[in-house]
Amino acid sequence: MTTENQQHQGQMALGLLLSPASSHIAGWRHPEAMSNAGESFDEVLAVAKSAEEAHLDFVFLADELCAPDADPKILSRDPVIYRFEPLTLLAALAVTTKRIGLVATQTTTYNEPYHIARKFASLDNLSNGRVGWNLVTSYVPAEAKNFSESSHMGSVDRYERAEEFQEVVSGLWDSWDDDAFLLDKASGRYFDPSKMNTLNHEGKHFSVRGPLNVRRTPQGHPVQVQAGSSEAGLNLAAKCTDIAFTAQPTLAGALAFSKTLRAKTVAAGRAEDSVRIIAGVQPIIGDSPEHAQELYEEMQELIHPEVGLTRLSQLLDYDVTGLPLDGPLPDDIPDTDNYKSRRQLIIDTARSENLTLRELYLRVVGSYGHRIVVGTAETVADELTEWFLAGAVDGYILSPTHLPAGFEVFKDKVIPLLQDRGVFRTEYTGATFREHLGLNRPDLVKIETV
Amino acid sequence: MTTENQQHQGQMALGLLLSPASSHIAGWRHPEAMSNAGESFDEVLAVAKSAEEAHLDFVFLADELCAPDADPKILSRDPVIYRFEPLTLLAALAVTTKRIGLVATQTTTYNEPYHIARKFASLDNLSNGRVGWNLVTSYVPAEAKNFSESSHMGSVDRYERAEEFQEVVSGLWDSWDDDAFLLDKASGRYFDPSKMNTLNHEGKHFSVRGPLNVRRTPQGHPVQVQAGSSEAGLNLAAKCTDIAFTAQPTLAGALAFSKTLRAKTVAAGRAEDSVRIIAGVQPIIGDSPEHAQELYEEMQELIHPEVGLTRLSQLLDYDVTGLPLDGPLPDDIPDTDNYKSRRQLIIDTARSENLTLRELYLRVVGSYGHRIVVGTAETVADELTEWFLAGAVDGYILSPTHLPAGFEVFKDKVIPLLQDRGVFRTEYTGATFREHLGLNRPDLVKIETV
Repeated sequence: MTTENQQHQGQMALGLLLSPASSHIAGWRHPEAMSNAGESFDEVLAVAKSAEEAHLDFVFLADELCAPDADPKILSRDPVIYRFEPLTLLAALAVTTKRIGLVATQTTTYNEPYHIARKFASLDNLSNGRVGWNLVTSYVPAEAKNFSESSHMGSVDRYERAEEFQEVVSGLWDSWDDDAFLLDKASGRYFDPSKMNTLNHEGKHFSVRGPLNVRRTPQGHPVQVQAGSSEAGLNLAAKCTDIAFTAQPTLAGALAFSKTLRAKTVAAGRAEDSVRIIAGVQPIIGDSPEHAQELYEEMQELIHPEVGLTRLSQLLDYDVTGLPLDGPLPDDIPDTDNYKSRRQLIIDTARSENLTLRELYLRVVGSYGHRIVVGTAETVADELTEWFLAGAVDGYILSPTHLPAGFEVFKDKVIPLLQDRGVFRTEYTGATFREHLGLNRPDLVKIETV
Repeated sequence: MTTENQQHQGQMALGLLLSPASSHIAGWRHPEAMSNAGESFDEVLAVAKSAEEAHLDFVFLADELCAPDADPKILSRDPVIYRFEPLTLLAALAVTTKRIGLVATQTTTYNEPYHIARKFASLDNLSNGRVGWNLVTSYVPAEAKNFSESSHMGSVDRYERAEEFQEVVSGLWDSWDDDAFLLDKASGRYFDPSKMNTLNHEGKHFSVRGPLNVRRTPQGHPVQVQAGSSEAGLNLAAKCTDIAFTAQPTLAGALAFSKTLRAKTVAAGRAEDSVRIIAGVQPIIGDSPEHAQELYEEMQELIHPEVGLTRLSQLLDYDVTGLPLDGPLPDDIPDTDNYKSRRQLIIDTARSENLTLRELYLRVVGSYGHRIVVGTAETVADELTEWFLAGAVDGYILSPTHLPAGFEVFKDKVIPLLQDRGVFRTEYTGATFREHLGLNRPDLVKIETV
């Protein structure tokens, strides 16, 4: 089954992470870097326009709804304290760019489906069909403290809520047939009543009547993105997602992930190529292998030990901030319920390679778990092409260590190589984000009137 | 006490309602009118830019979070079914206009303060200090049905929640001293920890830790707008509002409203001129008095009887849709708890003037309760100047029957007269919305660290 793949054939999708603080943790300290909170909209727009000039599929805005839990003195070195509000920033980009897709993160745990459905519908209208919603369930427990909750919902409940939330949002996006609004001035008929679809959703978490007070959008449904790789996350992706983001450090891991997700997608009754699998990549590009390695090490050296130990403590769910940098990870780290698999991987790495705490944080906190490719433009193009041609991924989301320079070098040096190899477009052929991705516009699901 | 009035001296504030469906109820049917759902962003932007060219203080987006409760066949003639999502539309306008203030409506009843504080802070940053928040408490009960609530909260509870909501939002806007973000690449210090203010709000309706993950904005606090005229609404306005919107059909009523609100403002410990009182006006401008009257009647005739009776039924909280248009209002309309005072006024008018149902709906549903001024440009300028010089109002929000033409005629003919009389600016003198209004930038209230 390759029903949705016609336009997409042989071409990888490329996105760009537009949140400087979510790329390399010390990237903002680079002399040429945007610093995440200091710049004006014009500087952010310039990066988005540059990505559009390179014919990228999309730019992406990550998000969290709180400051990390930490002593303010330690926190004061961490740029993730600051985050552009994604929906308002995306709306501003929607009317100042023309072709590129625009993806924003919004959680289902601390939002209401009517608001989310409406804002993304409005954004899809404003952008003429270029918007995507990255659905997350809030993996940072401290968000609860900004939303009047005494505790953060457990993972099972969060995904159950997310699934129903997504159903409601999809239903609201189908509130109106595409041709429902007549706007007939002569007769005074504003819409055709037979083309209004009242959702009347009654579920465990939500009851939402509808209809949405925004028309159906150019894409029908904005592109649905999801990044969870837990069992529940994969099941949700298989059921309804258009793009699955994933962090895969090895080709074998990426192939296994892809196989699992495609099998689940088929089991959920969808064509196996209906989900685009997009892996994170942090490219470090030098004139020679040695030069690239130098650039990487310069960037790593900008990670302040306080930031490194604090972030490592968060990943371990265990406070190592007071311990000697050149000593080992302690033996007696207690068990925990958070970040279980990622955490065990970190502990195993530290033990098996006998790493100091400094070596350990340098290994794990720089790229937030994204694959790092260090080398010449040729090497980077080779590595990206290899995974793509192996069928491990449908494309990549780039998280350069810093913006705009980290993307500019990719654009100038790597993209022409990908184009030479025939695996990346030389111009946009579609108008909407779905068309960039080679995905169909979803048919409207008509609600039966009771 | 006239501490905040220096720039504002002798000049009225003017705003423009940018929601076509909230102006004259049949305005969209005018041959030259935008129809609310059909147009592109470019058409909306053109109106905002025209208002900016006329040096208006602001454009304003009204909002509701549901379709009216009605049979879809009857509803199908009512343009209020469609509403641009205000926050995303405002963000798009923020980066495509340069000087004009931008006000969006958001309810405190079906939102969370962290989201609202963050989105308006982001908008104020995107617009370089030109944003205002019109705080409403959702007077339409059907909104509950889109937000998983079995019933709509009563008015007392809604205002109690609104007051606490507003306190939380204000506190979150003070999360960072103006110079908190150091972005010091050399030392790696992102912010000064002594300049981060964690709110730690614990109240009846909300517990919100903070800090907000967005910096303090150009205006310190976005302009706070409020339109409630109930006792609770006035008390909230007196306590914290920068602009009070009001619908006043008579000068005597406007003077009384102004006196009451100014007294309450002083009682709340603020300077009496710290609230700008802005009244709604629907101007109908003709070349002669007769021509203006004709234009008004042409517009009134576009109100379809089904729409007239449906809207009248909503205002009466009693269904008159099946009754004869040329018969009287029935005698036996039962008591109700909704819209009590407005409703009684309508019933009294019908009885005392012996109006048919058609005459009654024509009287009350056209302008949504806004003052209507029908006449030549001279008459309109006279009437607006009179109320302003009498101290009844600080300015007006214009709701032309249709856009863009209804505003263009005001801009071309009335504004020059107001300028000749010295009561309206000929150019912008300030950069922020607060500066347009002659209001101070609020000092940051430092939270005591426990």
